[in-house]
Amino acid sequence: MATVVRTCVEPALPCPKKRRLESEDGEKPRPWRIRLGERAKGIRNPIREIMDTIAGKENPAKPLVSLAQGDPSCYPHLRPSSEMVASLSHAVTSGLNNGYQPSQGSARCRAQLAAFFNAPSRPTLQPKDIFMTLGCSEALSHCIGALAAPGSNLLLPRPGFPLYQVLCDYHGVEVRYYDLLPNSGWQCDIGAIAKLADENTCGLLINNPSNPCGTVFSREHLVEVLDKATELRLPVIADEVYAGMGFARPYVSCASASAKVPILSVCALSKRWLAPGWRIGWVTVYDADGAFAEAGVPETLLKMCQVSLGPSAPLQAAIPEILTSVPDGCPWHRDVLAALEASARCCVRRCRATKGLEVAAEPEGSMYLMVRIQPGVLDVEDDVQFAGKLLEEESVAVLPGQCFLAPGFFRVVFAAPVEVLEDAWDRIEEFCRRHVRVKASPGPGPCAAPPEEVA
Amino acid sequence: MATVVRTCVEPALPCPKKRRLESEDGEKPRPWRIRLGERAKGIRNPIREIMDTIAGKENPAKPLVSLAQGDPSCYPHLRPSSEMVASLSHAVTSGLNNGYQPSQGSARCRAQLAAFFNAPSRPTLQPKDIFMTLGCSEALSHCIGALAAPGSNLLLPRPGFPLYQVLCDYHGVEVRYYDLLPNSGWQCDIGAIAKLADENTCGLLINNPSNPCGTVFSREHLVEVLDKATELRLPVIADEVYAGMGFARPYVSCASASAKVPILSVCALSKRWLAPGWRIGWVTVYDADGAFAEAGVPETLLKMCQVSLGPSAPLQAAIPEILTSVPDGCPWHRDVLAALEASARCCVRRCRATKGLEVAAEPEGSMYLMVRIQPGVLDVEDDVQFAGKLLEEESVAVLPGQCFLAPGFFRVVFAAPVEVLEDAWDRIEEFCRRHVRVKASPGPGPCAAPPEEVA
Ligand SMILES: Cc1ncc(COP(=O)(O)O)c(C=O)c1O
Ligand SMILES: Cc1ncc(COP(=O)(O)O)c(C=O)c1O
Repeated sequence: MATVVRTCVEPALPCPKKRRLESEDGEKPRPWRIRLGERAKGIRNPIREIMDTIAGKENPAKPLVSLAQGDPSCYPHLRPSSEMVASLSHAVTSGLNNGYQPSQGSARCRAQLAAFFNAPSRPTLQPKDIFMTLGCSEALSHCIGALAAPGSNLLLPRPGFPLYQVLCDYHGVEVRYYDLLPNSGWQCDIGAIAKLADENTCGLLINNPSNPCGTVFSREHLVEVLDKATELRLPVIADEVYAGMGFARPYVSCASASAKVPILSVCALSKRWLAPGWRIGWVTVYDADGAFAEAGVPETLLKMCQVSLGPSAPLQAAIPEILTSVPDGCPWHRDVLAALEASARCCVRRCRATKGLEVAAEPEGSMYLMVRIQPGVLDVEDDVQFAGKLLEEESVAVLPGQCFLAPGFFRVVFAAPVEVLEDAWDRIEEFCRRHVRVKASPGPGPCAAPPEEVA
Repeated sequence: MATVVRTCVEPALPCPKKRRLESEDGEKPRPWRIRLGERAKGIRNPIREIMDTIAGKENPAKPLVSLAQGDPSCYPHLRPSSEMVASLSHAVTSGLNNGYQPSQGSARCRAQLAAFFNAPSRPTLQPKDIFMTLGCSEALSHCIGALAAPGSNLLLPRPGFPLYQVLCDYHGVEVRYYDLLPNSGWQCDIGAIAKLADENTCGLLINNPSNPCGTVFSREHLVEVLDKATELRLPVIADEVYAGMGFARPYVSCASASAKVPILSVCALSKRWLAPGWRIGWVTVYDADGAFAEAGVPETLLKMCQVSLGPSAPLQAAIPEILTSVPDGCPWHRDVLAALEASARCCVRRCRATKGLEVAAEPEGSMYLMVRIQPGVLDVEDDVQFAGKLLEEESVAVLPGQCFLAPGFFRVVFAAPVEVLEDAWDRIEEFCRRHVRVKASPGPGPCAAPPEEVA
């Protein structure tokens, strides 16, 4: 009681009893020695940041339709085949796949991948050429980390998948962008590649089929790009995570379009096999004239694998059966491509019918469409505001082009079934109609709030 | 024809046709621009390097017995419970777990882990305090990466798990070792911790139960160590991957031994749940007075999770059932501990009966025994030679103490059943008998080749 009264009447005086509770020597404790690692702190992955924070921003009156995340398994019409699931389930229940695997991955799994991804014009792929990883993301990290000599730069596509930049920052590699040209079907600006490369360029990253553009390069275009890499003596990192996902044009791998260029190709079960959550991917080393081996690249990839110890053992055990059960052209694979094509067509048609929007190039594969916001037609400032308002008003989530360094566009994922897409496009159309810029606006300007916000 | 003849008779002359095949401008092609990233190139993980290269070095006349790899699932007497397997299999076949999860991990999975690892003396753990990772290895990497401020150093136990050093090198953190004292039951040299710490020390790493020592710290010892951390204002990285694996002494977590110290605890299904190949782990952030939050540690951990996107979705989905189906003290868990204890006792007894070897401290948990090679008794130069010759001659694999910075010791993994261990120890005993140093050796010295190599 006395203490309480004293504390109350002499609040400015130090209170020994209370102080003693805080720290034994009567001082306020010094702060804990906690400071952050610069590289970790510096990580910025725009897509994941948006995806992780998107929940709750939608219009509560309308159900959310997400055309934002590149997850082909969100809707039940696209899912791993029953054979795939049975293989994995068997690998789990067999009791044989609970232990550590070799760091590079199980030999049986790598042998099957080597056979699957063999390029006839090149030396036969061996199990030693495959490195198992945690999805394509870790595969990319290993490749960029392996080639990240001090002072080096990497040529990246723009628009492109934001993780490339994240990984370059993380591994200390300077980023240089070559453009994909929207008016030439998002083909690579080959002249730009030549201009950007210098003696510190450690590689050319090619993403085919493309996220976010939905393009599938023709063999001729790939040959041209790889000829340029040959001329510049640049090894290639081929992000082929959408391998086998061309519907309007057959997919051609970098390794089969060039017999010589040293290629690190990365892939995963995430897209063509519709299992992004399984987190299993791989690096394939195509090293026709031994240049990677001579430089020590395979050894370095192995070292990186020795830190995280590779993907889950049951998944590795299931890979051989998975690969053989759903080969290219099997009914399951054909159905997947047909569904994607139908969805792509729906999006293109609806987009073309929407005032203020424009299709830059029709998608040929993967599961993405880039939509151009016609300048000056809608009362939105830019693609970020477009995406934000579309979510707030219509509960439709799309990613602004700026996520991919393509301002003025937004990306639509068309992995949803046609009914869902039709609904989403009804809302997008309605949104655009509402936001068409009034010629002589009486309000506070072209960015006036839409009617329902005023009301 | 003419060309062929000319080529044959004038081999020294340039052959334009052949040259054109090699390169268009008639020069030998310049080398590809391939150089290695320094950090990746610098990775050295001694255990994995040895494990990846051990195959084939054994005596072909004797079957290999490996007491080298810390994989508790190598022998069928220790395996995940049938409930665990059923949960995972169900998660696979349900068709609900094929998609991307939130980067930090599925909310349901994190909620269950938060409940499981809650420490009553601390603020109740929340799902936000758990970060899902690819095994304990990635959990450690995230913690070290998060605290790796420029110029910082981390205090590591010696002997200790070699990955700590690998990760510190990778993240640019200086390493300082405090000793575990073999003659005090491998307890921490607390005086050394105080001497090593300075204003750049970013944390104290405590590994309990211990790899490679097999110790389980008493609550009193843990309290002493954590009091020192408090005094030095050092956050703790608690490697508790062997949580729940004390058989001779109950395991006490760091979080329950101190109410205040900021602790990043790392764990996984790899050991206590006997599923190292599944590759699922987590970081638990114990942040009683908000010091981690204030410094931005949880945000930074999330950023690191956003790069690799976490463990396989079916595994995350299975975690809640796995945790509830085999709680501490359930029959399955009791059986696992009993098997480990029997195996540990067998190793201790056999080691004590072997001339030239000595048990430093009886194991109390985990699955490791450190054996001291008595100086001067055997005709081997050091622990590396001991392990090499033991493998070559007896096909018994153990890891030399130098892997753990403990020269003069070797590590025995006692996760094998007693019959296997008895066989292995028969061979170790035989090996030691053969290698007892002869007082006045007539041969080339104390390291003379053993009889069967001379014969
Ligand atoms: C072009 C591209 N590369 C790599 C990845 C990462 O794939 P994963 O989920 O297998 O890590 C993605 C994922 O969307 C992608 O679009
Ligand atoms: C002390 C210690 N920490 C961490 C790990 C890594 O565990 P995980 O296999 O879950 O990555 C191990 C593995 O042996 C270990 O012994």
